[in-house]
Amino acid sequence: MSVLQEISSNVKNMKQLEYSALARRLKQIKEDLRQGVRKPFKEVIDVSWGDPHRGGMKPLTFVRQVLAACLYPQLLIDNKLPVDVRRRAQKLLDGCAGRSVGSYSATGGIPEILQRVSEFISRRDGGVPSDPENIFICCGSQWALTRILNVLVNAEAAFTTGVLAPASCHRTTTLSIEGLGGVVIPYYLSEEQGWELQVEELQRALESAEGACNPIALYVINPGNPAGHVQSRRSMQEVIRFASEKRLFLLADEVYQGCIYGEKEFVSYKRVLAEMGPPLSDTVELASFHSASKGFMGECGLRGGYVELVNLDPAVQKYIYNLFTTDSCAPLLGQIALDLMTNPPLPGDPSYFQFDQETQHIKSTVVKNVKKVCEAVNGLQGFSCQGVEGGAFAFPRIHLPAKAIQKAKDVGMQPDTFYCLKLLEEAGVLASPGSEFGQKEGTFHIRFCILIPHDVLEELLRRLTHFHSQFMKDFS
Amino acid sequence: MSVLQEISSNVKNMKQLEYSALARRLKQIKEDLRQGVRKPFKEVIDVSWGDPHRGGMKPLTFVRQVLAACLYPQLLIDNKLPVDVRRRAQKLLDGCAGRSVGSYSATGGIPEILQRVSEFISRRDGGVPSDPENIFICCGSQWALTRILNVLVNAEAAFTTGVLAPASCHRTTTLSIEGLGGVVIPYYLSEEQGWELQVEELQRALESAEGACNPIALYVINPGNPAGHVQSRRSMQEVIRFASEKRLFLLADEVYQGCIYGEKEFVSYKRVLAEMGPPLSDTVELASFHSASKGFMGECGLRGGYVELVNLDPAVQKYIYNLFTTDSCAPLLGQIALDLMTNPPLPGDPSYFQFDQETQHIKSTVVKNVKKVCEAVNGLQGFSCQGVEGGAFAFPRIHLPAKAIQKAKDVGMQPDTFYCLKLLEEAGVLASPGSEFGQKEGTFHIRFCILIPHDVLEELLRRLTHFHSQFMKDFS
Ligand SMILES: Cc1ncc(COP(=O)(O)O)c(C=O)c1O
Ligand SMILES: Cc1ncc(COP(=O)(O)O)c(C=O)c1O
Repeated sequence: MSVLQEISSNVKNMKQLEYSALARRLKQIKEDLRQGVRKPFKEVIDVSWGDPHRGGMKPLTFVRQVLAACLYPQLLIDNKLPVDVRRRAQKLLDGCAGRSVGSYSATGGIPEILQRVSEFISRRDGGVPSDPENIFICCGSQWALTRILNVLVNAEAAFTTGVLAPASCHRTTTLSIEGLGGVVIPYYLSEEQGWELQVEELQRALESAEGACNPIALYVINPGNPAGHVQSRRSMQEVIRFASEKRLFLLADEVYQGCIYGEKEFVSYKRVLAEMGPPLSDTVELASFHSASKGFMGECGLRGGYVELVNLDPAVQKYIYNLFTTDSCAPLLGQIALDLMTNPPLPGDPSYFQFDQETQHIKSTVVKNVKKVCEAVNGLQGFSCQGVEGGAFAFPRIHLPAKAIQKAKDVGMQPDTFYCLKLLEEAGVLASPGSEFGQKEGTFHIRFCILIPHDVLEELLRRLTHFHSQFMKDFS
Repeated sequence: MSVLQEISSNVKNMKQLEYSALARRLKQIKEDLRQGVRKPFKEVIDVSWGDPHRGGMKPLTFVRQVLAACLYPQLLIDNKLPVDVRRRAQKLLDGCAGRSVGSYSATGGIPEILQRVSEFISRRDGGVPSDPENIFICCGSQWALTRILNVLVNAEAAFTTGVLAPASCHRTTTLSIEGLGGVVIPYYLSEEQGWELQVEELQRALESAEGACNPIALYVINPGNPAGHVQSRRSMQEVIRFASEKRLFLLADEVYQGCIYGEKEFVSYKRVLAEMGPPLSDTVELASFHSASKGFMGECGLRGGYVELVNLDPAVQKYIYNLFTTDSCAPLLGQIALDLMTNPPLPGDPSYFQFDQETQHIKSTVVKNVKKVCEAVNGLQGFSCQGVEGGAFAFPRIHLPAKAIQKAKDVGMQPDTFYCLKLLEEAGVLASPGSEFGQKEGTFHIRFCILIPHDVLEELLRRLTHFHSQFMKDFS
């Protein structure tokens, strides 16, 4: 009586991540190490996630103190926690039904937090107004994105819905599009130009999809993942004009807005759109995503993200609201994390000094990491790495020897997955293969997280360097 | 350039909850009260949610201490927290990447927690085996249910997917089915028999759907919401046989398994199925849901729930796994709440005494509440209330006078919504109308939460009694 034959072909067609072969191997190696099996390394360095705490970055004290006090209000009574921590926790509990983080909140989020998030957005965007009614807090930004795609991708339509998305692209997004019955129209970022997004390429991608699907949305990631590019204002203006001309809904994944390492500044799509003035600023439909998972806070496990909707037809927004209703609310502690991310301690607050020190330390660590990575990786034969301007990852290109490519084919693997598997087995480093994210035919990459302590990065680079020269020898 | 015309008709067809009229009115009344507007009441008693903390129930100290220590491990250092709390927090952190609740976990949940949840299930079910590989932890049980429905409901199929669901039914489930493009085939519970589920009625419902859709699943809620019925083993056996005959996938919503108030015992569908032996025990496909939101812990805001799958085709389970992958993991603190719910302190543990006292206090409060509600409501003219055997709600029937029904029609409202609106305006009590959940044509009900402190319940009943006699006078 299996329901297998009944299952939606959309779900059936979702690709299993090839990555899971690596994940399985990781599990086994960890088990081996636990059982005392001798390996050339004592511990695996897993840099396949964009997850700062996993790699050993420390959570921010202020954030954890407020969250702990909200959970266990006994902590508000004695004087151990700074007074601004206690005051903030009190205020946040006032916004929770029954003054408990154990109650449900309204569908879109706690009203007081939505209000403060909207004020943050407006400050960030140089005064462009933001209305809490247009913001929905979800169980992570990924989830917000899936819900918006849920409304945009029409599985019953005669003509499949198409969504333009970058290659290389954060994989869960493309999986979501496929799972909903849409198709991804990949556009390539220009690696040689530091992973720039070029409008001519969007044009080419759109034309290539003609007749095959109904393109309805354009997904951009800025700062990028896996490629750590930060878009310029001019490039964003071009993208907005393109979206307007082609009547595309703009999905701006801006979760890495707090992770900027170079000269360039982050500017939001919403701000650029507003600055362009009417008619564009009144008409281009935009959804912008942000998250407590990223930035220097890095609270992935709390699951708090939001989407802000701009220029949406009120009827469409009502449908979105209805869909969100079926999920219940986002976890209250994730919502609170968003409040803290968007409203950190200010100079003069008792917690400010420590907060500032901790965030400065993280920032300087990552800046140092980025420099070190580019130097080290560009120094290796067969590797080249574009500058990392933002985001959580380095995404160097690797020029694999023909013998290695052949060997990978023989064992039925993508060549870069083959490389990553060997890197894991022989050097105890888990990076992700570029094939997981999509890449230009014939090119190969590996991705690894740079939001890690500097000594861990140094060890990683030592292992990579040693492994890589052996690999190149073996397959030359 | 609106995408309105492109939106999936499934999403468009989702019904907006009529409830939101009440929610809007509640917001306004609360604002009035804040501004000092005089009303016959000082505060609204909102019993429209199944949310214990909202109504004033206290969280369990042990649970909050462990969660706070996981968030802020500084608390592990001094000796303020009981040693078993600290040990548990340490152990839980060992299961988190980088020993932080701020990292992502694997898709289905933290392996150690999945293991302990499966051991709980097996203990609960008298030794029936449970495999952690068949358990998926989600951001609330509702979410787990939506994801399973996602696989079952095939929007592209020529013939609409049908899901049998009780009327009255927890509303988010029926909304989910509709949002996915399926249809709900309602079956009525027999109010006169204490809201019993009768197989003849399932048969009738299924026949009524013949030719209109392709029935693929049967959703049962046990203990019930809104009706607080607890199913007998015999009734469950009949349901299982029916599901097997009709080749229906069984969806057992068992989130209220910890909330039992009378003589009857909770038995899980999985256990009953196992006890029935082959061929049924090897073939009937079952998904069973549980949650940290309910029970005496009542941690709704943490968002932790799970589904256990039984007898699923491995290929189907793979699709389910793929779908879950697109959501990222459940919030780690919600996962930890599940660990604590399924593995509470044991006799002899330092925290046991307080834990036992707190849970006993909640339990005796609710038992007292149930008794009081039935007495009071059955004493009112025009009201009748079946015994509440489990769950979080009382769901009395109300026999509205013809004049009230006419008046409601005149203002374009369901009669029980009209009653609830007046109850809110005049007595400051927010209950939910039965029409929100579906009910037999011509019958009316109201639902309110009984997981509230006893003094709040007494005040609620005072207000209801006073309001009701005035209402009956006004409309007689
Ligand atoms: C580009 C991008 N968007 C979204 C997400 C998901 O973040 P969240 O944890 O808020 O769901 C990630 C996570 O790695 C990401 O890289
Ligand atoms: C029958 C039933 N199932 C599921 C849920 C949802 O619970 P969760 O908070 O785990 O999503 C509820 C909530 O009220 C419910 O009543």
